[in-house]
Amino acid sequence: MAPPPTAPALLQTTLDAMPPVRAMQVQVVAVTAERVSLRAPLAANVNDKGCAFGGSIAGVMTLAGWGLLLMRSRALGLALEVYVADSQIRYLAPLYQAIAAQAWLSDPACWEPTLHRVHQRGRASLNVQAQVLADNGEPAASMTARFALVLPAHAPAHAGDATQFE
Amino acid sequence: MAPPPTAPALLQTTLDAMPPVRAMQVQVVAVTAERVSLRAPLAANVNDKGCAFGGSIAGVMTLAGWGLLLMRSRALGLALEVYVADSQIRYLAPLYQAIAAQAWLSDPACWEPTLHRVHQRGRASLNVQAQVLADNGEPAASMTARFALVLPAHAPAHAGDATQFE
Repeated sequence: MAPPPTAPALLQTTLDAMPPVRAMQVQVVAVTAERVSLRAPLAANVNDKGCAFGGSIAGVMTLAGWGLLLMRSRALGLALEVYVADSQIRYLAPLYQAIAAQAWLSDPACWEPTLHRVHQRGRASLNVQAQVLADNGEPAASMTARFALVLPAHAPAHAGDATQFE
Repeated sequence: MAPPPTAPALLQTTLDAMPPVRAMQVQVVAVTAERVSLRAPLAANVNDKGCAFGGSIAGVMTLAGWGLLLMRSRALGLALEVYVADSQIRYLAPLYQAIAAQAWLSDPACWEPTLHRVHQRGRASLNVQAQVLADNGEPAASMTARFALVLPAHAPAHAGDATQFE
C-alpha cells in the first residue's frame, strides 16, 4: 500500500484540481503547522502594466490561508470543510516578480477553542493573516481574512448560507 | 480610418491582454458611465467543491471596479492609470453558476472632486462598490474597494510605492 501523501503533496494535489488555481500555476513551497507558503510565477499572473495582477495576489494569499486551515485539520484526521467568509486586503506596492505568499493564524491560541466550537455547533470561524513579500523583503500586499471551519454535515449545499466555498 | 472602439470593446481588449484574466474567461456584458458588468463562466472558475472559486469572485469584482474607473477616464480622454489600493470582501453564499459582477461608484458626487485632486496632485483615490448576484437575485459576494487614479508621470515604476497595479 502506498504511504499517505505528505502535507505539501496533498495540498498541491488539491490546488491543482481547481482550474483557476492551475491557471495561476500556484506551487506549494512549504507547509508547517504554523505557516503555509505558496508561489505563483509572474508570467501566468501578469497584468497590463507588466506586474502582478491584483486578483492573482488576492487569490494566492487567500489560498495560503485556506490551505493552512485545511492542512491543520487534515493533520488531526478531521475532514472539515474550509470556506473564506470575508477578507480585507491592502495592496502596498507593485510586484514585478513571482507572487510569494505566506499565511499564518492571527492568534494560534484560538485554534483549540475554535475546534471545540466546531464540534459543539458544527461550525466556527477563525482569523488568518497573509502577506506577499518581494525578494528584497518589502511587503507587496497584506490580508486579514476570516475563514469558516465546518463539519461536512453542516456544509451549505446551495446559495443562501452565510459563507462562500473557497 | 477605422472608428474608435466602443467602450465594451476597448475594455474587453484590455482584459484579454492579461493572461490571468484571459484564463478566467472574463466577458464584458455592459459598460455605462454608472456601471460595469462582467461575467465569467463557472467551468473556468470552479473550486474543489464544484462552485465558484473565491479568488475568481474577488478578481471579477475587482476588475469590474477597475474597468469602471478606466472607462470613465477614457471617456474624458484622460490617460489615467487605475490601481486597486485596498478592498474589503464578504463572501455571502456559495455560487453554483457563472460569476456575474457589477461595479459602481460608492458616491458619484466624489468623481469631479477626485479628478480635480488628480490634476492638482497627480493622484487621488475613490471608492467603488461591487457585487456578485446569483440568477435568483440573491447576493453571493460584495466588495468595497479604494482605487487610486494616477497621472502617468506619477505612476510608481517599481515596488516601494503605496499602491498596487491592477
